[in-house]
Amino acid sequence: MSLLLPSTPRADGFHMPAEWSPQSQVWMLWPERPDNWRYGAKPAQAAFAEVAAAIARFTPVTVGVSAGQFENACARLDPAVRVLELSANDAWARDVGPSFVINRDGEVRGVDWQFNAWGGLHGGLYQPWNRDDQVAEKICRIEGLDRYRSDGFVLEGGAIHVDGEGTVLTTEECLLNRNRNPELQRGQIEQHLRDYLNVEKVLWLPQGIVDDETNGHIDNMACFVAPGVIALAWTEDRNDPQHAICQRAWDYLRSQRDAKGRALQVHRIVLPQPLSHSEEEARGIDVARSAWPRRAGARMAASYVNFLISNGAVILPSFDDPTDQVAANQLADLMPGFQIVCIPCREILLGGGNIHCITQQQPTAVKEGTIDGTLD
Amino acid sequence: MSLLLPSTPRADGFHMPAEWSPQSQVWMLWPERPDNWRYGAKPAQAAFAEVAAAIARFTPVTVGVSAGQFENACARLDPAVRVLELSANDAWARDVGPSFVINRDGEVRGVDWQFNAWGGLHGGLYQPWNRDDQVAEKICRIEGLDRYRSDGFVLEGGAIHVDGEGTVLTTEECLLNRNRNPELQRGQIEQHLRDYLNVEKVLWLPQGIVDDETNGHIDNMACFVAPGVIALAWTEDRNDPQHAICQRAWDYLRSQRDAKGRALQVHRIVLPQPLSHSEEEARGIDVARSAWPRRAGARMAASYVNFLISNGAVILPSFDDPTDQVAANQLADLMPGFQIVCIPCREILLGGGNIHCITQQQPTAVKEGTIDGTLD
Repeated sequence: MSLLLPSTPRADGFHMPAEWSPQSQVWMLWPERPDNWRYGAKPAQAAFAEVAAAIARFTPVTVGVSAGQFENACARLDPAVRVLELSANDAWARDVGPSFVINRDGEVRGVDWQFNAWGGLHGGLYQPWNRDDQVAEKICRIEGLDRYRSDGFVLEGGAIHVDGEGTVLTTEECLLNRNRNPELQRGQIEQHLRDYLNVEKVLWLPQGIVDDETNGHIDNMACFVAPGVIALAWTEDRNDPQHAICQRAWDYLRSQRDAKGRALQVHRIVLPQPLSHSEEEARGIDVARSAWPRRAGARMAASYVNFLISNGAVILPSFDDPTDQVAANQLADLMPGFQIVCIPCREILLGGGNIHCITQQQPTAVKEGTIDGTLD
Repeated sequence: MSLLLPSTPRADGFHMPAEWSPQSQVWMLWPERPDNWRYGAKPAQAAFAEVAAAIARFTPVTVGVSAGQFENACARLDPAVRVLELSANDAWARDVGPSFVINRDGEVRGVDWQFNAWGGLHGGLYQPWNRDDQVAEKICRIEGLDRYRSDGFVLEGGAIHVDGEGTVLTTEECLLNRNRNPELQRGQIEQHLRDYLNVEKVLWLPQGIVDDETNGHIDNMACFVAPGVIALAWTEDRNDPQHAICQRAWDYLRSQRDAKGRALQVHRIVLPQPLSHSEEEARGIDVARSAWPRRAGARMAASYVNFLISNGAVILPSFDDPTDQVAANQLADLMPGFQIVCIPCREILLGGGNIHCITQQQPTAVKEGTIDGTLD
């Protein structure tokens, strides 16, 4: 049974847990659209499969795939991965899947955000997006989880990060963009975040990563790695427009406290040097009016911060760049006790996102104050 | 994890349980093809929804639906029913779903029969059937169940009935039909049934119901209602070609013993009077070369024996026919302790089958000698 609930998580005592909380599974979607993924999406499929296999070492993975790609996905994915039919307009489970919430009794529900393809008919990345907007509901129905729907409030899962203790991190560039919720004021947006995530404090970074087609999703720019501790993408290159953006984020975060009243520890994570689409890469993409054009030379929004935390592991993008090891070391220092697993992700980046964007974690149904459901 | 196993259920100690064994869920598929279901399948969808709701009172139901019909199916089905994306070429879960097998430890696996749309390119009911032939695998993957695939042996779930104690019931008309396995002899077919169902004895009725486009599926003609007890479709009308077929089945069954050496008790279940497609019904079906034509006046293979047993209930077809109550009373007498639930099924019959054809039960994972998993 999967009911559509008329209330909000806050009203019902549910909140979104932090990403380092126990996870029962991670959801992904299978890339296939040839107007976004080069060469019939075969290189991207190989990269997604590698990400899925890496996560599956720590957490069960389910990959949703269209009917037409079912056989191919089954053949290419690790046998440990669950494959099922679940069609979408593209493959961004973070943004179209539900944000899961949990209550003190360990009951899990889904938040089904209204979705408009990162900007709607004017400024969005493709149309139609009707299948994308059904993904959260489908996942809840498969799992038999009740669901909240944020009708009247457009959001993507990649536009928020929570600490699980009352604080949400987001960007003005995205949430205040007029291509999302032009009729809502900042205060109303904050109220929606409070209602659907059950948080008290909203932290507003001004902007995200330069040229990020999501309009500055937070999950490419900064994230919590522990309560009160934030990893922030960083460049020392003063000639890069990204530098000033990072500096403003740093200054902002250092001036803020979280919902618990803690001053924030902010740690810099190196950015790779600017990366752009090559001629050869751009050539492999279908020409189509329905999707965002990808041209040779266009800068991509590469960032190590777009990692997934999953049951003791950090699944970290790498770009065949000298900074890969620097970022891995920074995170290893910052997150002792977590295993850092680096996965080559240029193919995912070419499609407009990275590991965090293509994954959505489902928390384990565990009562508060217990471990694995057993009272301690 | 759902593995394709290279062995057979028999080799691994798995067998198909009887339909009256405990069931964890029942699988169905959502009808939509307009060249088989009249008026865009809307009347059939209403009938399927009623069947699903009836079963859901006793057993959880999952309905697989195409991406295009997802929203509509969710709106029309009982909220207790789980809906998920699972495309097929039509809606016959019995024939395209897995036949589930179980071992002494209560582990459940699926048998994924090779499928050829009831007869292949020459004599089958439609083409293509590639999505149908993926359904069993998809169900096993959703549930994380290992799977056996009967490559080289074509069978549909509706062509067999088991007593769970070593005996399978089938028809020569179907299994020996040269449109199924022309290269296999009767003895080889029996061996496949022994291997995949883990039975000892094969009971061969000569034929099924007249004009059954499945080539005489057993599940429209006769079934076990208990070990050693068979319900047989029956007509007293000597002018009906069905009469001689029923008489031959009766004589055969009365001459046989089951795998346990029991003589068989055979009980007659009345058949409805012959039913055929009306002009108005035939008019609502798309004209298409890809599917079996349905013409006004064509006799339909109506039979009450096409019921589903599910966790103490018998979900029984009715046809707005005076014999409906006769059949219900006969089954009530024959199956004391079971609740008889009658569902109007003419709309399902118009598409070529009935309640048993559109359902597939999944046994509960229960250890042998235990009830509900608890040692008794």
